[in-house]
Amino acid sequence: MEFSITQIAAMLGGEVTGDGSEKISMLAKIQDAKKGQIAFLSNPKYEQFIYTTGASAVIVKNDFQARKSISCALIRVDDPYLSFTTLLEEYHKLISFQKTGIEQPSFIGENSISGSNIYRGAFSYIGSNVKIGNNVKIYPQVFIGDNSIIGDNTILHPNVKLYAGTSLGANCVIHAGTVIGSDGFGFAPQEDGTYKTIPQLGNVLIEDNVTIGANTTIDCATLFGDSTIIRKGVKMDNLIQVAHNVEIGKNTVIAAQTGISGSTKIGENCVIAGQVGIAGHLVIANNTSIGAQAGIAKSIKDEGQKLIGYPVFDVKQYFRSYAVFKQLPDLNYRLRQLEKKVIGEVNPVSDVSSNGSNS
Amino acid sequence: MEFSITQIAAMLGGEVTGDGSEKISMLAKIQDAKKGQIAFLSNPKYEQFIYTTGASAVIVKNDFQARKSISCALIRVDDPYLSFTTLLEEYHKLISFQKTGIEQPSFIGENSISGSNIYRGAFSYIGSNVKIGNNVKIYPQVFIGDNSIIGDNTILHPNVKLYAGTSLGANCVIHAGTVIGSDGFGFAPQEDGTYKTIPQLGNVLIEDNVTIGANTTIDCATLFGDSTIIRKGVKMDNLIQVAHNVEIGKNTVIAAQTGISGSTKIGENCVIAGQVGIAGHLVIANNTSIGAQAGIAKSIKDEGQKLIGYPVFDVKQYFRSYAVFKQLPDLNYRLRQLEKKVIGEVNPVSDVSSNGSNS
Amino acid sequence: MEFSITQIAAMLGGEVTGDGSEKISMLAKIQDAKKGQIAFLSNPKYEQFIYTTGASAVIVKNDFQARKSISCALIRVDDPYLSFTTLLEEYHKLISFQKTGIEQPSFIGENSISGSNIYRGAFSYIGSNVKIGNNVKIYPQVFIGDNSIIGDNTILHPNVKLYAGTSLGANCVIHAGTVIGSDGFGFAPQEDGTYKTIPQLGNVLIEDNVTIGANTTIDCATLFGDSTIIRKGVKMDNLIQVAHNVEIGKNTVIAAQTGISGSTKIGENCVIAGQVGIAGHLVIANNTSIGAQAGIAKSIKDEGQKLIGYPVFDVKQYFRSYAVFKQLPDLNYRLRQLEKKVIGEVNPVSDVSSNGSNS
Repeated sequence: MEFSITQIAAMLGGEVTGDGSEKISMLAKIQDAKKGQIAFLSNPKYEQFIYTTGASAVIVKNDFQARKSISCALIRVDDPYLSFTTLLEEYHKLISFQKTGIEQPSFIGENSISGSNIYRGAFSYIGSNVKIGNNVKIYPQVFIGDNSIIGDNTILHPNVKLYAGTSLGANCVIHAGTVIGSDGFGFAPQEDGTYKTIPQLGNVLIEDNVTIGANTTIDCATLFGDSTIIRKGVKMDNLIQVAHNVEIGKNTVIAAQTGISGSTKIGENCVIAGQVGIAGHLVIANNTSIGAQAGIAKSIKDEGQKLIGYPVFDVKQYFRSYAVFKQLPDLNYRLRQLEKKVIGEVNPVSDVSSNGSNS
Repeated sequence: MEFSITQIAAMLGGEVTGDGSEKISMLAKIQDAKKGQIAFLSNPKYEQFIYTTGASAVIVKNDFQARKSISCALIRVDDPYLSFTTLLEEYHKLISFQKTGIEQPSFIGENSISGSNIYRGAFSYIGSNVKIGNNVKIYPQVFIGDNSIIGDNTILHPNVKLYAGTSLGANCVIHAGTVIGSDGFGFAPQEDGTYKTIPQLGNVLIEDNVTIGANTTIDCATLFGDSTIIRKGVKMDNLIQVAHNVEIGKNTVIAAQTGISGSTKIGENCVIAGQVGIAGHLVIANNTSIGAQAGIAKSIKDEGQKLIGYPVFDVKQYFRSYAVFKQLPDLNYRLRQLEKKVIGEVNPVSDVSSNGSNS
Repeated sequence: MEFSITQIAAMLGGEVTGDGSEKISMLAKIQDAKKGQIAFLSNPKYEQFIYTTGASAVIVKNDFQARKSISCALIRVDDPYLSFTTLLEEYHKLISFQKTGIEQPSFIGENSISGSNIYRGAFSYIGSNVKIGNNVKIYPQVFIGDNSIIGDNTILHPNVKLYAGTSLGANCVIHAGTVIGSDGFGFAPQEDGTYKTIPQLGNVLIEDNVTIGANTTIDCATLFGDSTIIRKGVKMDNLIQVAHNVEIGKNTVIAAQTGISGSTKIGENCVIAGQVGIAGHLVIANNTSIGAQAGIAKSIKDEGQKLIGYPVFDVKQYFRSYAVFKQLPDLNYRLRQLEKKVIGEVNPVSDVSSNGSNS
């Protein structure tokens, strides 16, 4: 990014006070900013910094009145924080999409085609019959298997791996090391105790506007023509496991290290915290909120519940039960005291002591 | 795959009705199948589709009698579903092993040798003194460290990483991004609060017929000459952690995101669900079944148990206890009512309220 | 490694008995050792092996007196085990740092500089404006984004990925497949149910002497100029998730598959077991010890606690409560018996049966 202050003011619909010709190449906080950088002032308690900042420009409110002399240019707008956020987003887009061209060596198979303005990093591997849209960014060491499809404006960070036949929508971002389309975990037990591999012949279908974190794994569907499906707008974090034939409904958000077992169907607009485990062949209703480390063993039918525990139940009830759990030795003691009073003896079987033995 | 209907019928020991000369290149469900594809009809409720299917051939029972005209060829067999499954497996083998030859650029060190019919994808790296068997498939961006051994018919998916000295058996499948042989997590605390690294000098030994999912990690053993061992026929899912000096017994199955700590020895034919944690230096008996998210802190001595919880105990007992856990606030209330009746007062210490504070 | 027995004795400050001219290339256990290898004898119960070992040399105590004839050379030292450990460490350093030079093809961008004695493996990718110290080892298929810094003596194992702007200290070891600097998981909910991506513009800062396991993920900080920080001497295992803006205090140790949510600050010298989950925006006191699979939902203010459970509390209290948890059906039964005696009836609402239903 390198725009003049005047150009930035025009983008933001703001007005320049001072010299608008200087070039800006970076955004920064007002207290840290240096020459060539732009900052913003929204909260009055930071006003002191505008008199000492090294920034070349600061975005301020329309009605800002300096109480001392100021050495930087000002851009006056309605909402400085919103304007700064807009700049951040534009800057992020610029750096995300700035790479272009084809670095060598890189590998591309037969009959693969790609759109305009793409980036293909060194050591990236594109198989045969792959279709790549416009403005796609394929970082170094990415692997794209045969017959895959990548939509416009999608970014594959270093070393993303797409197995053959993966279908990826537009405006997706997949972070480094993530694997999409690996075999589902399907094995048929044999009489001699060994397992026979069930061929995994489906694929993974990811719709538009999906973001997936780093080192996540998504398995392909088992049967021909079937897909593991990630719907439009889903946001997934790092190190998540999605098994074969799962479907995740649109705009659902999933935090790191959660695992979803085979053939489970998750609704739309769910919020799933980290390290959650969801068993196979379940249906999770729309708008379900699942707390960290929860375990789900049965389908969730009613929408909008907030659940936690293993197996899950209502989050408020869980914490009430857990508060008593912490007092259980005392509860047990009180019960024995009552038994002594009422029955006159203690059931010796009930005399549990403080160990957590498992065998 | 491209075989004539007659050739496929011969493979299945079936008999052709209709034109057997057409070429088949794909398998599909009867309701979705198109020209050039083969489907099967086993369940009578799908019979309607045989009259409208686009398939070039359908596998049917020996005694199938059409009630309307049929435009596709038929292959008559004893068990259509079994025959279709056989075809699926053959197809899967064909596509798994179809890649052959050496793509460039790829790297191979000194004194490394490989058998016949292997595939070495572009950007794969093979160190020095590596021995690779026949029919091995090394996908792009795989890393094989010095002095490793790979058995016949083993498939390494894109970007699998084997540290130096790894020994991998025959007929194994390792999915993308998995790391085998990384350093065990061994650090000796020093008096000044820092940790000194304990050198990790062993390796990983994986026997025949092992399948490992994507982005899983298996650490090497600590000492020279020692190995972390995965026995014959083990099936492991994605994102599993196997620490140094672990041994996993033959035909044991482990679901995604489970972690096994150092020096633990897991028996044969165990079934371990997802997100399970197993502490170090334990012995787990054969045929143990461990439920999702369970935590194992002590050795399991008796075979054939079904366990869950943290720490684990019998799965049925766990769910009975958990049912009461959900009612604990009510239990506590009932106990206080009894105390009031019997003692005439409530112990104020026991008056726990609904919070889950941890400090 | 290839040193004569005399040279090794000199390194250890020991004295040779027998022929010191033979070359040693490997360390081994006394019972397994072969020609060209060195072993040690410390525990008297292994003395038998010194008379039959194939080792070329054995490290023994100064006052060791053979009771039979011995065919190998001896190196006499004060503490044979300590001397052997020293040799192991030296050997480990040697093999860790033996790779040197630049393998082709590898990629390096503009204005990137590197120190002396470095190794750059084939298919490694180094972006622009990267600074690499002396003696750094970059294994094959590593990715280093633009503007990154790598300190002296740091080892990046195969396929480590550093996003642009990562700062890595000296004497660090990062294992295969680990991702450093991926976007933090930040999304702002919109009125239509979709999420808008919050640009992630900070970086990751890792200080000296840090070890990180395989396939771990560390996200960058959200804002310009901010960093996710891993302090000096931290040791992290495999498959760990560290979210944006986290700070981990010096000499803290974290086991596999643990996850730390955004903006949490972990103290110094903490010991965190495997599969632990820590919520966002918390502060964890120094010297906190957290048990496996624990969940932390609130800040830990007092130093030196040992905690477990979800949410966590004192580990001893947890196991006492858990012991009663295992007896809950019996506790419930006893309470009902008392109610019958005292009140003369059972509250029907309280009659929970053995199921773990979640809906």
